Amino acid sequence: MRLRGRKGIRENLEQQEDLVVLDPREYKGKWSQMFGNDRPLYIELGMGKGQFISGMSFKHPDCNFVGMDMYDELIRRGSEKVRNIWSGHEPENSHNVRLALGNIESIEEFFAPGEVERVYLNFSDPWPKKKHGRRRLTHPRFLDKYRTLLNEEGEIHFKTDSRELFEFSLNAFAANGLQMGSISLNLHGDGINEEHVMTEYESKFVGQGMPIYRCEVKVGELALRRYHDHKMEQF
Amino acid sequence: MRLRGRKGIRENLEQQEDLVVLDPREYKGKWSQMFGNDRPLYIELGMGKGQFISGMSFKHPDCNFVGMDMYDELIRRGSEKVRNIWSGHEPENSHNVRLALGNIESIEEFFAPGEVERVYLNFSDPWPKKKHGRRRLTHPRFLDKYRTLLNEEGEIHFKTDSRELFEFSLNAFAANGLQMGSISLNLHGDGINEEHVMTEYESKFVGQGMPIYRCEVKVGELALRRYHDHKMEQF
Ligand SMILES: C[S@@+](CC[C@H](N)C(=O)[O-])C[C@H]1O[C@@H](n2cnc3c(N)ncnc32)[C@H](O)[C@@H]1O
Ligand SMILES: C[S@@+](CC[C@H](N)C(=O)[O-])C[C@H]1O[C@@H](n2cnc3c(N)ncnc32)[C@H](O)[C@@H]1O
Repeated sequence: MRLRGRKGIRENLEQQEDLVVLDPREYKGKWSQMFGNDRPLYIELGMGKGQFISGMSFKHPDCNFVGMDMYDELIRRGSEKVRNIWSGHEPENSHNVRLALGNIESIEEFFAPGEVERVYLNFSDPWPKKKHGRRRLTHPRFLDKYRTLLNEEGEIHFKTDSRELFEFSLNAFAANGLQMGSISLNLHGDGINEEHVMTEYESKFVGQGMPIYRCEVKVGELALRRYHDHKMEQF
Repeated sequence: MRLRGRKGIRENLEQQEDLVVLDPREYKGKWSQMFGNDRPLYIELGMGKGQFISGMSFKHPDCNFVGMDMYDELIRRGSEKVRNIWSGHEPENSHNVRLALGNIESIEEFFAPGEVERVYLNFSDPWPKKKHGRRRLTHPRFLDKYRTLLNEEGEIHFKTDSRELFEFSLNAFAANGLQMGSISLNLHGDGINEEHVMTEYESKFVGQGMPIYRCEVKVGELALRRYHDHKMEQF
């Protein structure tokens, strides 16, 4: 059964209360309570069709996952992916994932300070024009938001096919005094481990032989100390 | 007149006391004294045929430059480049550059702690095999040496055509807690300023349309503080 039209999509999402969160503001500071456990919370911002978040939730039952996007049609497609990958398995395990409809601009309204342990940014829109630089999800103004949400162990894991966005992002991480690591300029050429979960965009670009860029970023006390000294130097 | 053979090259270099330093150990801690002024000291490690160091010395008479290589034939070719570029100009200005024969492995024997303000690493040998990783001039063991030589304003400016070496180097800088900036994954595509001086290798690779990678790294107090906490994490 394929639902058509916005109304149809909304009705579909409303019937999926076990998986879909239509107003993530409700759970700010209460995600652990909602999941019913204290597992670390990993969130993907701009999850698209949900291949990554569904795969991750299945591979890592010891973590809680929230995939976020601003389009309800993508949340619907993501919900199909999650149900597919979990079908035939212990239903209680699928309870480690939620798909949330929301605009990342308002991320601080969805998660409380220190509530998140990891932010995944996968193939975020590159916004190539300089005048749109502020919309890039690795712009320092977004990094400021993420570091507030992240706990002391917090990390941002970022991958992209866009050389320009990657260059911009490395400079933004550096300027914000964040501790980078595991930098790769050709992820699939360097050899990835078996646990690696691909996103829809990643599958496409790897299929075309394009290099994928990746980087992990740590926040935490030292990074923070440094941050305040270096902050406004470059931006 | 073209000199042939090692003996001929040595004789040539010995006759160029105003420009060539055959034993840089002599000037450890005394470079300012030797140049006769307190201008900041910029050094290029692995200068090759000297296009960069000669061009830089000419463009920046307010700084002192030392180009270093371990092959006397390259020092000789470099000396021709320096004399060419300075010919017809005030001879006293050319006194801001020296070409030094030495192995970078022993760099701490050539410069005293805090004596250097900038280290240039241009198109350093990539040593692609993993077992040769320690020979890369951006290996943490070299970074340790450089940060000792560099003063509080000290920076390392690194450019290369090798994606693998650049990836390795970014991770090494990050692991050593160094503050990165001005990262470029396509230097000539991003638009370079007019002051940019190209090296021999750079001219060649840019001519072939290959991307050039570049990064500036700061040492200094904060970087140091961080360094001690994060040092052995990745290496
Ligand atoms: C280029 S797609 C990548 C999708 C997926 N991560 C992948 O790698 O296949 C970017 C996604 O981010 C979402 N997105 C962009 N800006 C957003 C925002 N401000 N709030 C929520 N989602 C956003 C888009 O709707 C889109 O699904
Ligand atoms: C690939 S070439 C680059 C030359 C020049 N910088 C350029 O960009 O055109 C590397 C240079 O580093 C020098 N070199 C490599 N290892 C060295 C060492 N341990 N000590 C001194 N020079 C070294 C080599 O002799 C060679 O001239």
